[in-house]
Amino acid sequence: MTLTITVADSLEEFLKLPESKPVCEYINGQIIPKPMPKGKHSRLQLKLSNKINEIVESKKIAYAFPELRCSFGTRSIVPDIAVFRWSRILFEENGEVYDDFLCYPDWSIEILSPEQSSNRVIGNILYCLEYGCELGWLIDPNDRSILVFQPHEQPRLWQGSDSLPILNELDLALSADDIFAWLKMG
Amino acid sequence: MTLTITVADSLEEFLKLPESKPVCEYINGQIIPKPMPKGKHSRLQLKLSNKINEIVESKKIAYAFPELRCSFGTRSIVPDIAVFRWSRILFEENGEVYDDFLCYPDWSIEILSPEQSSNRVIGNILYCLEYGCELGWLIDPNDRSILVFQPHEQPRLWQGSDSLPILNELDLALSADDIFAWLKMG
Repeated sequence: MTLTITVADSLEEFLKLPESKPVCEYINGQIIPKPMPKGKHSRLQLKLSNKINEIVESKKIAYAFPELRCSFGTRSIVPDIAVFRWSRILFEENGEVYDDFLCYPDWSIEILSPEQSSNRVIGNILYCLEYGCELGWLIDPNDRSILVFQPHEQPRLWQGSDSLPILNELDLALSADDIFAWLKMG
Repeated sequence: MTLTITVADSLEEFLKLPESKPVCEYINGQIIPKPMPKGKHSRLQLKLSNKINEIVESKKIAYAFPELRCSFGTRSIVPDIAVFRWSRILFEENGEVYDDFLCYPDWSIEILSPEQSSNRVIGNILYCLEYGCELGWLIDPNDRSILVFQPHEQPRLWQGSDSLPILNELDLALSADDIFAWLKMG
């Protein structure tokens, strides 16, 4: 077995590397693989992205991108869902979306995977908030709870049927119960 | 195999139940077992308790109790280390420490175990802070980082050699590097 370790001295250098599977993030000068998503993760990521886009895309308010690389400051991270206000999305002349997002998302949503380091994920959410992100969600399917981060505030743990804090101006009422109910498929 | 499910309608009722292995917490009306500690967890819990008590016990400033049940509000939780200021520890007439702690710790320290729900643990730390606890640490051996909670503030992620925030008036300089260096035994 050959173990290949890739190093990058800067964000610029990291961004020149080819994308890999599993996808890697660049945090504090280190290249760190994200865990490969499993069933619950995959299900919640798609359902929640669709739910948000159902409300915001046609009105050009915002868009939820699953698995989008966001590079800013000294990090390159890949939130499970990165929601951008429409005005912050860059388009090419022909109206197509740009490939490279060199900016923080307005709403960062992470779904904890088993064995993923929660501190590392929370570190990324806090980093986004520092740069101007307005809202962070950490969804923990294991605990059926969502930890909600807002700028300069103590995070709050949400469970049950109360409506969760949403990005301002988005007309969306969602509770933890609503979200975890999506796990039931059959 | 027989599965026994124990229910308790109130904290009072929960506290009448016999202690079990693994130890259980009572959170939002549910009885939830804590994971059985493994090697890294056990090592950090003892080393950190000793390190704190080395500084604070003889001067009667505070005391770090590993695995102490703290029951207050509607919860009964068992932080991995519960640090109490000396003035808040109850003693019997003969000077022995009381068995029952019906109060929040001044400093709650949790060490994440593999497969433990981080949101649940963070929920307990936030609950302590709501009641008057001054400091919460969430130690993640997997990420070599410590998430530090203080009242009414955004938590902050600590790594490396910077001195961590400590309970006021405790003369203790400890970094994340210092703490994770204890994992190396041989």
